Amino acid sequence: MLPDWVYQECPDASLSHREAASRRQSELTKPAGALGRLEALAIELAGLQASKCPRAACAPIIIFAGDHGIAAQGVSVYPQAVTIAMMQNFAAGGAAISVLARQLGVPLEVVDAGTLAEAPLVGVVSDKPRRGTRDFSSEAALNPSELAFAFDCGRRAATRAARCEPDLLILGEMGIGNTTTAAAIASALLRTEAEAMTGRGTGLDAAGRDRKVRLIDAAIARHAIAAAAPEKILCAVGGLEIAAIAGAIIVAAQARTPVLIDGFIVSVAALAATRLNPSCRTYLIFAHKSAEQGHRRVLEAMEARPLLDFDLRLGEGSGAALALPVLRLSCALHNEMATFAEAAVPDRVG
Amino acid sequence: MLPDWVYQECPDASLSHREAASRRQSELTKPAGALGRLEALAIELAGLQASKCPRAACAPIIIFAGDHGIAAQGVSVYPQAVTIAMMQNFAAGGAAISVLARQLGVPLEVVDAGTLAEAPLVGVVSDKPRRGTRDFSSEAALNPSELAFAFDCGRRAATRAARCEPDLLILGEMGIGNTTTAAAIASALLRTEAEAMTGRGTGLDAAGRDRKVRLIDAAIARHAIAAAAPEKILCAVGGLEIAAIAGAIIVAAQARTPVLIDGFIVSVAALAATRLNPSCRTYLIFAHKSAEQGHRRVLEAMEARPLLDFDLRLGEGSGAALALPVLRLSCALHNEMATFAEAAVPDRVG
Repeated sequence: MLPDWVYQECPDASLSHREAASRRQSELTKPAGALGRLEALAIELAGLQASKCPRAACAPIIIFAGDHGIAAQGVSVYPQAVTIAMMQNFAAGGAAISVLARQLGVPLEVVDAGTLAEAPLVGVVSDKPRRGTRDFSSEAALNPSELAFAFDCGRRAATRAARCEPDLLILGEMGIGNTTTAAAIASALLRTEAEAMTGRGTGLDAAGRDRKVRLIDAAIARHAIAAAAPEKILCAVGGLEIAAIAGAIIVAAQARTPVLIDGFIVSVAALAATRLNPSCRTYLIFAHKSAEQGHRRVLEAMEARPLLDFDLRLGEGSGAALALPVLRLSCALHNEMATFAEAAVPDRVG
Repeated sequence: MLPDWVYQECPDASLSHREAASRRQSELTKPAGALGRLEALAIELAGLQASKCPRAACAPIIIFAGDHGIAAQGVSVYPQAVTIAMMQNFAAGGAAISVLARQLGVPLEVVDAGTLAEAPLVGVVSDKPRRGTRDFSSEAALNPSELAFAFDCGRRAATRAARCEPDLLILGEMGIGNTTTAAAIASALLRTEAEAMTGRGTGLDAAGRDRKVRLIDAAIARHAIAAAAPEKILCAVGGLEIAAIAGAIIVAAQARTPVLIDGFIVSVAALAATRLNPSCRTYLIFAHKSAEQGHRRVLEAMEARPLLDFDLRLGEGSGAALALPVLRLSCALHNEMATFAEAAVPDRVG
């Protein structure tokens, strides 16, 4: 149902580069292990990038936007027009992720992977099989060829980003209604009641959230997708931007590019990607723990321990962008600190 | 016992600037509260700096180094000579904090507040009342005039840093044996058994840690300082670099400069500072949760919730430096994001 490239194996991390990085960490002028997770990060990046000098300088951000038929059921406190307005805000430089990209000095590409926009927007790459998904409370959100198109959209974007030989890739999303879509995908993939997976999104009250839970449980039953194949789940209740992100993750991992994973929505895309192609898991670095309720469960399913916990629930790749300085500083420490021998600092006694 | 300036009130945060910042956050193109702790940080900084545009650009780092008589009791796995060697490594650019300062583009000053160094070292400000503290297992570590000198050393350093009109101050420390000193101060200030406050420092084994616990409990009993006045505790079991940091914190807070608080040692200095002058508490921003066992208790005593948790146990101000990008990005988001009105993004329904 999906293109062949989706299933092609990603390379293993380089064990020899990991080991060399680990040895170097033990020689730097600090007590062994004193830099905690920063040491582990530098070692991990060295292995993934198969490099002596792990790097996090060039880390392009791609935001995929999509609209969701399920929004017609009133699952968001924001009108659907916000998806398009925010795409324009990303491109114009006024959104959170635009500010972060500028501050971090990394390029930002905005891809319309399936919004309702009728005409191309300035500063936005349009690459979509249809305008919005269908309402999954009454029919399948996508047909198989639309789903395949969305994966190819992700591949095309990751391939464009690869031109600058990125050290890392940051993926983000925008789409009114997409916490509902993501919760439905995750509930079906993990065979979990929607109750555990569903949060208040961008600001639902308790009654709104309950309604969202019932819609998801009903859709999973209607489409008979509890623990179904990921391809079937993504057609039934998927989102075009989520499928594009899953595709971009797999393509990046196949090219040895680690991907910094944002919050709930991107993590659900990552979960789908790892179910389709488990070998991509190695290349995922989890940036932050979202305040959105279902995120914890999705992270647990991938045995992921995110770097940051700031109670974010914005999306856009903002949590991943916030973690980039941590990776950059980990690399700088690894590459630039003096060894005990170089600095003539006495090492520990015995 | 301490100079009068130690007890002078710090100004309150500006309520009107806090409120204006809070209003601005609610107008930015994101769901209310979606940037979580980053919103709170920007609002807090706006209030502390009494500014419409919170800033974290200029954030000088000062490292205070000191030696500890208690090191003679074998409380560290590193030889005491490491204190001086690391001061030279800081100044030469090879230590973790040197790399971080360079990457962050902030100045780094190294102050010898009381190491065993006999001659001045290149790139190090020497400002000490004596070489090392006395061994507190047999006598008081400092006499009152030595303690006062160390506070004035902190004041002088903070005053030098104030020349560049800093947005924030970052304080760090170095001193073989200073987790023992810090655990003793914190145990006495908080009337806690040393058992709860004592960790393995830079790498003690279980037997070494047990010995450290017994030394601290014995010293607190010997000097009769459980819940004594902070001045008395700091003389009995204090450290020159820790006292200097407490002084620098108070001076910075009196000048409306927020201080980014590093791990266990600097947090204990902050605890002492808040006991001496409670009005400085407002200006403390806690950067990270150290892997050193006692840190949690010290943070709880100040109702502090640090930003980062990377299992660090290095000191040098490294955890505080790692949090600086978070503050910078919080400020950029606050100052540069578009409002709903500016970007013509529809706000939430009702």
